[in-house]
Amino acid sequence: MRQTIDDRHWFTEPCEEGGSAFSFRLGPGGKLHEETTPYQTIAIYDTAFYGTLMVIDGFVMLSARDNFLYHEMMSHPVLFTHPAPRRVLIIGGGDCGTLREVLRHPGVESAVQVEIDERVTRLAEQYFPELCEANHDPRAQFRFTDGIKWVEEAEAGSYDVIIVDSTDPIGPAEGLFQEPFYRACHRALGEDGLLVQQSESPLYHAELMRDMAAAMRAGGFAATHSLYFPQPVYPSGWWSATLAGKHDSLTTFREADVDARPFATRYYNRDIHRGALATPEFMM
Amino acid sequence: MRQTIDDRHWFTEPCEEGGSAFSFRLGPGGKLHEETTPYQTIAIYDTAFYGTLMVIDGFVMLSARDNFLYHEMMSHPVLFTHPAPRRVLIIGGGDCGTLREVLRHPGVESAVQVEIDERVTRLAEQYFPELCEANHDPRAQFRFTDGIKWVEEAEAGSYDVIIVDSTDPIGPAEGLFQEPFYRACHRALGEDGLLVQQSESPLYHAELMRDMAAAMRAGGFAATHSLYFPQPVYPSGWWSATLAGKHDSLTTFREADVDARPFATRYYNRDIHRGALATPEFMM
Repeated sequence: MRQTIDDRHWFTEPCEEGGSAFSFRLGPGGKLHEETTPYQTIAIYDTAFYGTLMVIDGFVMLSARDNFLYHEMMSHPVLFTHPAPRRVLIIGGGDCGTLREVLRHPGVESAVQVEIDERVTRLAEQYFPELCEANHDPRAQFRFTDGIKWVEEAEAGSYDVIIVDSTDPIGPAEGLFQEPFYRACHRALGEDGLLVQQSESPLYHAELMRDMAAAMRAGGFAATHSLYFPQPVYPSGWWSATLAGKHDSLTTFREADVDARPFATRYYNRDIHRGALATPEFMM
Repeated sequence: MRQTIDDRHWFTEPCEEGGSAFSFRLGPGGKLHEETTPYQTIAIYDTAFYGTLMVIDGFVMLSARDNFLYHEMMSHPVLFTHPAPRRVLIIGGGDCGTLREVLRHPGVESAVQVEIDERVTRLAEQYFPELCEANHDPRAQFRFTDGIKWVEEAEAGSYDVIIVDSTDPIGPAEGLFQEPFYRACHRALGEDGLLVQQSESPLYHAELMRDMAAAMRAGGFAATHSLYFPQPVYPSGWWSATLAGKHDSLTTFREADVDARPFATRYYNRDIHRGALATPEFMM
């Protein structure tokens, strides 16, 4: 372990499996907040370039500067792949950034965010107000409880899209990467139901990506397809999300609706969506 | 400046403009070599995950683990965009990785690599032999001299493709990012001539990318288009290369030839090429 983690001028996240570390120069605010909840330790930093930074148990969750990449790619591709998504479930996503993007879609009638740790959301409201600007939308619902249990107890066919916006597959999030969870998601989804889940770094976690896709299919999904996108604050700077569908129609999407979308994006557009579907040769 | 740069267990590259730093855990070999040439200081490290690492003046040039991303994207897109590239000029590229990819194309009749510092190539031969495996190809030529001067003195229309595989636009490489150089490239290129140049991080250097494209057009090129791809060892992990063409035909390429390519790639394929052409909304 390097010696300068969390020193006075930098915050550093080492990544064991990548033999790498990414560091943020801190701004004048330094460490703005730290608290230990029943689930984890949450810290908030002021950084020089990346703006406000949220860190959970030493792992970077998001920065104000580049979270648009992740949040747009976790929400718009899956929503534009589904023919008519009305009922959306977000597992995790306590910072509310995914929720905000989901609610930009006028066709969405309800979006339930099931985050286990309410403090993540309360701190997001305080330190990332821009991500929480849709929290008072009447279509938004918040449940602070266990996402796995929520999906197991959900009525069959009650969601069109499930977005798993979770931490890494260690600790409380581990069960979110396993077949029983995917089987429960499959049951909770309607006829054209789609699941999308963050699936780590293609460079560091290719095996995890393959295992996840296999578990999704074992859980009942007919097809899986990964999306690739940059996410500088996550290990290696290259990230992925994996789609799972009840039908094999994950590589076509409502392109005309993307072009006519009634909201602004900073990264996502039709070509970016198509490009994110491209599979690197080594992942074939 | 953080205090642990180049300590015993890690090599760290800080990035001033990104307020960030990327660190590599060192392997048992530690620092394998360091020398100061008339141009720069070159260091070679053994890292735990990224394999052998070359660093010039403190800036990471390449790692054994992930250079395939950069080298494939610096060579195959431009070569499959040109209708029939026969004569290729590489400016910089002393590690020979781009040269190796260029020579995979059977239609290429000559590839001249013009690197200012012969020691980069000699160290690549020693520490990155896999990148130098095409160095004895009879189509390969090596000139250790100034790339700007080489292009200025080149016969008009004598190259089909110019690849600028340079260091950052500070120090000796600065002139490679300016209009007079692009004007000389334009003159040195044949009728369907194409230029491609590494153009830094979209997150950190969007303004540089725009300035570069403007300078390319001011230098006589009819069109420019940037390619986006992951490159974990470069600042932010997200990188770009910018194409410039004498004609406005940079977004179509020989797709059937890509599919029928007689060589293996690790990242590049037809969908990846198309995807790399997608422009993020914030760069529109």
